[in-house]
Amino acid sequence: MLETFLITLEALGVLAFALSGIMEAARKQFDLVGVVMIGAVTAFGGGTLRDVLLDRRPFFWVEQEFWVWALILVGLTLPFFFRATHIALTEKAILIPDAVGLGIFAAGGTHLALVAGMSPMIAVLMGVITAVVGGVLRDVLVNEVPRAFHDHQPYAAIAFAGGWVLVLLGYLNTPEYLDVAIAAILMVAMRLIAVRLKIQLFRWRFL
Amino acid sequence: MLETFLITLEALGVLAFALSGIMEAARKQFDLVGVVMIGAVTAFGGGTLRDVLLDRRPFFWVEQEFWVWALILVGLTLPFFFRATHIALTEKAILIPDAVGLGIFAAGGTHLALVAGMSPMIAVLMGVITAVVGGVLRDVLVNEVPRAFHDHQPYAAIAFAGGWVLVLLGYLNTPEYLDVAIAAILMVAMRLIAVRLKIQLFRWRFL
Amino acid sequence: MLETFLITLEALGVLAFALSGIMEAARKQFDLVGVVMIGAVTAFGGGTLRDVLLDRRPFFWVEQEFWVWALILVGLTLPFFFRATHIALTEKAILIPDAVGLGIFAAGGTHLALVAGMSPMIAVLMGVITAVVGGVLRDVLVNEVPRAFHDHQPYAAIAFAGGWVLVLLGYLNTPEYLDVAIAAILMVAMRLIAVRLKIQLFRWRFL
Repeated sequence: MLETFLITLEALGVLAFALSGIMEAARKQFDLVGVVMIGAVTAFGGGTLRDVLLDRRPFFWVEQEFWVWALILVGLTLPFFFRATHIALTEKAILIPDAVGLGIFAAGGTHLALVAGMSPMIAVLMGVITAVVGGVLRDVLVNEVPRAFHDHQPYAAIAFAGGWVLVLLGYLNTPEYLDVAIAAILMVAMRLIAVRLKIQLFRWRFL
Repeated sequence: MLETFLITLEALGVLAFALSGIMEAARKQFDLVGVVMIGAVTAFGGGTLRDVLLDRRPFFWVEQEFWVWALILVGLTLPFFFRATHIALTEKAILIPDAVGLGIFAAGGTHLALVAGMSPMIAVLMGVITAVVGGVLRDVLVNEVPRAFHDHQPYAAIAFAGGWVLVLLGYLNTPEYLDVAIAAILMVAMRLIAVRLKIQLFRWRFL
Repeated sequence: MLETFLITLEALGVLAFALSGIMEAARKQFDLVGVVMIGAVTAFGGGTLRDVLLDRRPFFWVEQEFWVWALILVGLTLPFFFRATHIALTEKAILIPDAVGLGIFAAGGTHLALVAGMSPMIAVLMGVITAVVGGVLRDVLVNEVPRAFHDHQPYAAIAFAGGWVLVLLGYLNTPEYLDVAIAAILMVAMRLIAVRLKIQLFRWRFL
């Protein structure tokens, strides 16, 4: 059951990040194929790097091939839907799927690393990597400074803090899937609140 | 014999992509060493990522060390040749080696993944990754939006379609090396025709 | 003892590259978290890719977790120190830690690859990768053309030459740690001299 829960969660995260990649690429007037590929890189990039670092095989997208098909379908049709319904692809609209992906991937990545026997600190870092790398690749590929490093709003910081929450929850007697769910929801909420309240991280300013 | 054929093919693909990388870096006025390194990344990037994802070792360039030497030699001398013969390093000139590399790497990558027991869809994706990643790294390193995503002409789409052709040819009773050769030639032809006829993929346009 | 020496050396290299990443990110007005992350990618990027390519586990930063903590601490405090002391974060100031990291990582990477049974050429390439990749990722992430390819001063070339020096020293009867130390110091010196004397690599110029 935990297995099923984790796969469902990862699928949700994949979908959320795919959405953010597809929206970003459509916004930048990429072509049909470019939109699908940016979506795929955003969705699978973080988890794949995590699995390479943890030496885990097979990858999520190899084992759960259905999601590759789903992603291609969504990437090919979604922009039509946006256009038909005149939904504006503003930068702000992208923040919501991005926040959902952040929470799910950070919680899932940390959990997987803990299961693989990593120390808490390394597990938390793996969560950060899982959550951040997809979006970073997306931004690098559309030739922008990655938002996660430069938008001055907490992103990786939330993945980091949320990872430690998951580690601490692990010392309680709660079922594992509940720990992961709580940490994920907490991070999504923190991100949305941070964006809403325009909380800014301290930024360096030199002459 | 299949082994020899595949190594020859990969060597040809390496050479073609190395050419495209060297030409691009020379065009951008990189220095001697930069030209060689961009050539190497373009040539070996896709295959190496494919091998990391498939957990295959040793890498092509570790096993066939000769090609590293060849690449360094070509990278150091080729730009002299271009300059001496006044061959213009236009963006158009790069399209030919790029097309050859595309066909060879997509066919070779798909074939290797099928041999490694991947499902058709995953094998086709591995072919796309092998064909696309070298050029994407080249474009990211010279700080441009990757052409494969953004030039609005079919590139990854051809690697995808050609990979499925190879999968289908696998159901016939033809020898394997012939399947790979046919798929590769088909993709090179498709790419050159697409470029020639200026076939454009549908591009998203929002307000 | 050789073990201890190598770990100390890698730690020094990590620190040097972390410094260069932190300085670059602070200069670009990244936020607190962005500074730490760019520092971490610069410091651990090259070694991690080397270990993935050599299929070595665990990674340096997984085994020597202390350095992750150190890096976070340094990344959070160092910019305050720069600001308080009015040390200018010029591009020139970054060149010194960058040179130290270059020498240490190239020597260490080549040594590790030789120990892993790679041929001299591949080992030298692994040294180049270890030394160059961290800085390249740093530059890509702040959306610049990587300096290692484009500043027209020898960088990768020094890692390459220094790697061969280490290979040749291996044929003498000197202790291994001495070979690595000599090669590393030699490379740092070469880099600093090259920068000081403004030695330029040949650059391509086409119409």
